Amino acid sequence: MSFKAPVAQIDFILNHVVPFAEVAATERFAEATAETTSAILDEAGKLCSNVLVPLNMAGDHHPAVLENGVVRASPGYAEGFRAIAEGGWVGVSADPEHGGMGLPQALNMAVAEMMSGACLALQLNPLLTQGQIEALEHHASDELKALYLPKLISGEWSGTMNLTEPGAGSDVGALVTKAEPAGDGTYRISGQKIYITWGDADFVGNVCHLVLARLPGAPKGTRGISLFMVPKYLPDDQGNPGVANSLKVVSLEEKLGIHGSPTCVMSYEDATGWLVGAENKGMAAMFTMMNVARLGVGMQGVGVAEAALQKAVAYAVDRNQMGPIIQHPDVRRMLATARAEVFAARAIALACAVAIDLERATGEADHAARAAFLTPIAKAYGTDVGIRVADMGVQVHGGMGYVEETGAAQYLRDVRITSVYEGTNGIQAMDLVGRKLSDGGDAAMRLLDEVLDGAKAAQGEHPELAHQLWQAAETLRETTLALLERELPQRFAGAVPYLNAFARVLGGHYHLRAALAGNGAHRAMARVFMARVLPRNAGDLAEAVAGLDDLAGVDDAALAGDFAA
Amino acid sequence: MSFKAPVAQIDFILNHVVPFAEVAATERFAEATAETTSAILDEAGKLCSNVLVPLNMAGDHHPAVLENGVVRASPGYAEGFRAIAEGGWVGVSADPEHGGMGLPQALNMAVAEMMSGACLALQLNPLLTQGQIEALEHHASDELKALYLPKLISGEWSGTMNLTEPGAGSDVGALVTKAEPAGDGTYRISGQKIYITWGDADFVGNVCHLVLARLPGAPKGTRGISLFMVPKYLPDDQGNPGVANSLKVVSLEEKLGIHGSPTCVMSYEDATGWLVGAENKGMAAMFTMMNVARLGVGMQGVGVAEAALQKAVAYAVDRNQMGPIIQHPDVRRMLATARAEVFAARAIALACAVAIDLERATGEADHAARAAFLTPIAKAYGTDVGIRVADMGVQVHGGMGYVEETGAAQYLRDVRITSVYEGTNGIQAMDLVGRKLSDGGDAAMRLLDEVLDGAKAAQGEHPELAHQLWQAAETLRETTLALLERELPQRFAGAVPYLNAFARVLGGHYHLRAALAGNGAHRAMARVFMARVLPRNAGDLAEAVAGLDDLAGVDDAALAGDFAA
Repeated sequence: MSFKAPVAQIDFILNHVVPFAEVAATERFAEATAETTSAILDEAGKLCSNVLVPLNMAGDHHPAVLENGVVRASPGYAEGFRAIAEGGWVGVSADPEHGGMGLPQALNMAVAEMMSGACLALQLNPLLTQGQIEALEHHASDELKALYLPKLISGEWSGTMNLTEPGAGSDVGALVTKAEPAGDGTYRISGQKIYITWGDADFVGNVCHLVLARLPGAPKGTRGISLFMVPKYLPDDQGNPGVANSLKVVSLEEKLGIHGSPTCVMSYEDATGWLVGAENKGMAAMFTMMNVARLGVGMQGVGVAEAALQKAVAYAVDRNQMGPIIQHPDVRRMLATARAEVFAARAIALACAVAIDLERATGEADHAARAAFLTPIAKAYGTDVGIRVADMGVQVHGGMGYVEETGAAQYLRDVRITSVYEGTNGIQAMDLVGRKLSDGGDAAMRLLDEVLDGAKAAQGEHPELAHQLWQAAETLRETTLALLERELPQRFAGAVPYLNAFARVLGGHYHLRAALAGNGAHRAMARVFMARVLPRNAGDLAEAVAGLDDLAGVDDAALAGDFAA
Repeated sequence: MSFKAPVAQIDFILNHVVPFAEVAATERFAEATAETTSAILDEAGKLCSNVLVPLNMAGDHHPAVLENGVVRASPGYAEGFRAIAEGGWVGVSADPEHGGMGLPQALNMAVAEMMSGACLALQLNPLLTQGQIEALEHHASDELKALYLPKLISGEWSGTMNLTEPGAGSDVGALVTKAEPAGDGTYRISGQKIYITWGDADFVGNVCHLVLARLPGAPKGTRGISLFMVPKYLPDDQGNPGVANSLKVVSLEEKLGIHGSPTCVMSYEDATGWLVGAENKGMAAMFTMMNVARLGVGMQGVGVAEAALQKAVAYAVDRNQMGPIIQHPDVRRMLATARAEVFAARAIALACAVAIDLERATGEADHAARAAFLTPIAKAYGTDVGIRVADMGVQVHGGMGYVEETGAAQYLRDVRITSVYEGTNGIQAMDLVGRKLSDGGDAAMRLLDEVLDGAKAAQGEHPELAHQLWQAAETLRETTLALLERELPQRFAGAVPYLNAFARVLGGHYHLRAALAGNGAHRAMARVFMARVLPRNAGDLAEAVAGLDDLAGVDDAALAGDFAA
């Protein structure tokens, strides 16, 4: 059985669970009618099933390699990328002025989810290019836009994101890469960057690096960082790839998974770059890129979860051990719980995308606040679900799951990165309880009010589901108020469980909506979610308010196993 | 930083947390004094740190290979195995009559844990040999014992366990391998077996396969299975390896991890075998082997968890991102929770081993019942903790965790098998709520009474910890009573969460004992466990009694993603 793109599931969520209709009702996104949406999803689904799925194992078995300084992509990746580019899928949400489709992020993210489920390692390439497009659209000069955007959107060129350095991971402000004005409006960039996804590709004409670096005399920390466009080949007068820039791929990392995606160590030595945005405002530009990328990574988790779950179900239907194992209560429990969580994670991510679209279409602050609040949840929960479901898939396969030939283990190896990159899930959780609660809890409370109102309205039709959700939302509200009273380090000690609990309440909310709008299958899934997933909030919310004291009482030696002291 | 065998941690648990002193007080195990115990642990710890640790990555990078029908082990494995054998570590608990040390399983398991943390792939070899020794000691004829036991115990030969066939995994009764009487007291064994760990090894003189097969006219299912000894080389008159038997390794599996451990497809064609135990009673003999192996696998989880946690702590101490990341509340939360869980899993496994020892030394049914009840918990919780902690280790390492060179990912890949083999953790949980509650809950209640008594007794010294544990144990008692009222399929639908909850209550019990007997570090860890781990029981116990109805309401199509119906 091969991966079937979840077109109908996504369509249902857009039409009945998240307010995508409000997006389509705006002037900006008037073209996103129900028909267009369905057609786009269908088309993308076909691309996934027909072209991308076979590349997934090919990339795992034949990783990208570095040969004479050039990255040779896995077999079939060039054709796969060409199909993505020619379908216009790089530019789903990009500005039509430069060749994009100008469609909502909700659609772009839906497509991203399906492509991730089909072939995560290749999908990373357009995902990063999309992030670069976003950054350029918002921050670059008109000249840079005119030169780069059409080629990035068409897939002629691809884009990367260069933040991390050996000493600067989560602490971006510690980076030391230098940028010196060359006197001609360009800059000389020197430094080493690591973990550069698709730092080179042999199926595009140019690879455009957005590089964070420090100008001479720049302030320390994140306030002294500027962003530069540093292309592999310097564009000539016609905008075509010309002279090679002074940069190179030093090596590729040997990784647990996504073997088809080259993870590069990049070296820049007086490479020519162009400033993007204002001096020392690189972090702001990078955040534009990162926010969409974060949601995109959440979607990757959902996509791989969907694919892993489909594979596990297919195996459980076929595998007989005293009857098909899908009939065994424990196997059914694993699969049903996973399906309920995949629905929840997908709905949360699409709700986040819709909030981004509404913000862009209306400019209203409430939508911006909601998008900002949902982004870390969508990223962390989506990727946690991805890992959890892929792990479950291995378990359902039994011994076969541990053998690489089935592909179940590959999903786990591949998706494992998603809770790490684009800000670890711990960073997401700290963002949630720190920055995203810094409005005094307004955004959180507006979301919770919506959940509580929804539960109230559903009391007649689904009294039990509504009651379970109401209680969970109320407890979460109380915990949120308690957290707001605390200092940041105290909040951080419970940030991850708090994020998990918030995600589950949102998941319950969307399940309830699906139960109201959908059929018996949706109602059955909502019952599974409320009975088996939502109750986990009790443990997480207890930990969310546990504070720092117990952790502070543990010394480092004991953590390492030395209890002598 | 390399792995430091947790000698002192184990010593503390044996001396203060589990009733190992009662074992040492028996006549059978009178030699297991505190001094002997410490000396044994120290010696094993040195072997682990000095000899076995370096083999772990070597085996991952240079997997065992099949060359001309012979398995060539990873570099250094021959020397590593020799050191294990010469130290007498294969026969720690084996009968002194045949060269064993005759020491308690608690000590054997402690050594197994340390070796697993040092090099899981190699440790599997003696673990399986030990299982075979157990089976032969209990079920084989005196002739077979005299021939095989001394060589297995000395490590001259090694042993395997042949259950699984392509169509018979968890459903052992479906196996079709045949055994025909040859007329001379031997049997002709024919069939294919899969997932045979260390099905061949080039560092032993003979590989002894215990093979489950069916005699002509045997009843269907598990009641028609017999056990046979089928050695690679037929022993000659002096008991030395003689003529090659008619069996071969067909291929090795390409696996997610434990690359140093060859997982063989074995083929038997009229191979010569000897009956072990009575005809059609092979399952009973196999269970002898499996019970100890199950506890051993639980120990493997603990061992890898310990190693992965040590590595994560060392990284977190070194890695600076706005200060050492071990000081970041979320990283500290991950590490402290992991440390608290490793303690709990280790204590549960050692408590199980102590129950086995007390049963063997006294023959009392209560000890047997306790050992039987704790075995599935020790196996499933130990391995779940192994996987959870190794996964946490990857997360703490951030991007470095996803890069293979650190070894953090290897722990996750290696330990992932432990929740699958020797009966999946789902099977363990079904065993717990099925067979192990079939005494009407007596064994469970005796354990819970002990926990409740312990909590009561600790009220004065540690009122908060005692209260938290008391409540959790009470809730678990109520859930246990509720489960006892249900039919098996209903119990199975909540078996895994029930097992998890039981494990946490036991973990809390042992943490409380450690808090009473130990120092500030132990008390700090107990607080972390009660605040952050034990509260997860609320969600699990809700699911434990959720029953089958919600799962039965979900149809297969919806599980696969088709909600149309």
